[in-house]
Amino acid sequence: MDFIKDYTLFLEKEIEAIKFPASPANLYDPLSYFLAIGGKRMRPMATLIAGDLFGVSIEKTKYAALSIELFHNFSLIHDDIMDKAPLRRGKETVHQKWNENIAILSGDVLFVKAYELLSKNEIKYLPPLLECFNRTAVEVCEGQQLDMDFEKRNNVSLDEYINMIRLKTSVLLGAAFEMGAIIGEASDENIKCIYSFGVNLGIAFQIQDDLLDLYGESDKVGKQKGGDVITNKKTILSILAKSNANNLQLNELLSIQKEIDNDKKIKRTLDLFNVLEVKEKCTITMNEFYNKAQKSLNDLKINSSKDKFSTLFKILQKRQY
Amino acid sequence: MDFIKDYTLFLEKEIEAIKFPASPANLYDPLSYFLAIGGKRMRPMATLIAGDLFGVSIEKTKYAALSIELFHNFSLIHDDIMDKAPLRRGKETVHQKWNENIAILSGDVLFVKAYELLSKNEIKYLPPLLECFNRTAVEVCEGQQLDMDFEKRNNVSLDEYINMIRLKTSVLLGAAFEMGAIIGEASDENIKCIYSFGVNLGIAFQIQDDLLDLYGESDKVGKQKGGDVITNKKTILSILAKSNANNLQLNELLSIQKEIDNDKKIKRTLDLFNVLEVKEKCTITMNEFYNKAQKSLNDLKINSSKDKFSTLFKILQKRQY
Repeated sequence: MDFIKDYTLFLEKEIEAIKFPASPANLYDPLSYFLAIGGKRMRPMATLIAGDLFGVSIEKTKYAALSIELFHNFSLIHDDIMDKAPLRRGKETVHQKWNENIAILSGDVLFVKAYELLSKNEIKYLPPLLECFNRTAVEVCEGQQLDMDFEKRNNVSLDEYINMIRLKTSVLLGAAFEMGAIIGEASDENIKCIYSFGVNLGIAFQIQDDLLDLYGESDKVGKQKGGDVITNKKTILSILAKSNANNLQLNELLSIQKEIDNDKKIKRTLDLFNVLEVKEKCTITMNEFYNKAQKSLNDLKINSSKDKFSTLFKILQKRQY
Repeated sequence: MDFIKDYTLFLEKEIEAIKFPASPANLYDPLSYFLAIGGKRMRPMATLIAGDLFGVSIEKTKYAALSIELFHNFSLIHDDIMDKAPLRRGKETVHQKWNENIAILSGDVLFVKAYELLSKNEIKYLPPLLECFNRTAVEVCEGQQLDMDFEKRNNVSLDEYINMIRLKTSVLLGAAFEMGAIIGEASDENIKCIYSFGVNLGIAFQIQDDLLDLYGESDKVGKQKGGDVITNKKTILSILAKSNANNLQLNELLSIQKEIDNDKKIKRTLDLFNVLEVKEKCTITMNEFYNKAQKSLNDLKINSSKDKFSTLFKILQKRQY
């Protein structure tokens, strides 16, 4: 567990050390603000751990780690505009605190800063790192577009939904691990394994996010409990509910969407989901992906200890918020 | 002149050959649409010519050239959102034809595609190409932010304005030439010269754009004649007018801004600018930058012919639309 604390501290220091010019203030102030809001730093942590597994120091993997974190923050700033989200991690989003134009443009410049950090790696790693980073960035955009498309559709299947979250959120975790392995000069086979580990872990993690939104025990992360239900957001829960409902239950689902009392809305949702065993079905799907991740971890052919991976794995799997 | 035709044809073919996936359609259709709208392809042309000057074929510089063109189009898509522009080159802008969210996200993915193309260069050129590209991309964002900031200020000086257009538009032309020179393995000194040539040419070109908006002979590029005057846009003309006006003329400038009859508005502007010799003063400033560009061109230490540069130079300088 201690290494998580150490690595987090290291990352926080490194992120704090990323300084932006003073001017134009409207371009750079939002970045300092947004990066300081924090988050779990799970992705850069993944890069450090993967590098560590293949015997390279965190000093050597830090630029790749930071570039992933900056890319992640860039995509959040832009996603928040598109989702019209007023809050992120309990604080005002950039477009809310400043305005949309500033959020678009500071997002753009943060994206370049991610590439700047990536470019600081040794020249021999640049081609595979760029290939991984570019491929992933494209997929993240595709995922966000699918997410927006799905909000307007009534017939999204479970497979489509999982493919969407794979692209929108999970490939980035896969890429974070992959980049650490690239710098660690891992074999192609091990790189594939570690990427697959990250992607499947990311999918499971995202499913857990959907679960915790309704079934979580606290609201530590600044999100409203049952927020997805209240805003009629498409989640794996609503998709599983719909695909298992009979006509009467489908009508109840539609009726719930129009319920204006939020407490009643959550209560009615929980009652219906209970009958449909949505939580159980969702947990089964989540565990499928945790198992796939575990399998990829087992398939890694290395002599060093996989302890750090297992620790991270367990922490992610056991979180209750 | 013939090489301009050849290179343009080559670039159009290469740009047409950039294929995007079919799905998600809302992400990729806007890109095929926007890239096909065209434009002068001046920036990628600059990369090809610079490479040519240092003895490398257009096949070797094309990826850098295309990456600059894609970056340019990405920045236009996002700028159009911020400027709420309904038209670009006489056609509907992306956010107008689709919506803002789609324009943000397709812009983002186009930005990644620019890096993808850049990454196709030989590994030994990647560090300097990335340094040039990243530095320039940051500056272009800074320029756009300054432009937005300036629209809200009443006291923008000529120097501030020129610095803004340098960042927003001219460094990209400089970078386009620089990237061709990098791949041509030019000396550091020559790279500096050619970059400076591009930046100064770009500034002169942009000043000419402001001039032609009001004093141009046609509206071939799909822009409204005097469009900047009608929308009260801050241009080098309005800044020169303001800085040379007495109190009475300042009042007239303010009064003109409120004129609702567009024809009268342009007529009154032309009358006042005539008295203030705005066109002449602006031409002097423009020529300063054309001269600086010419000086940088003269400073280039090469054995091969600079004819292509001079041709491009003359074409840009003499355009009347």
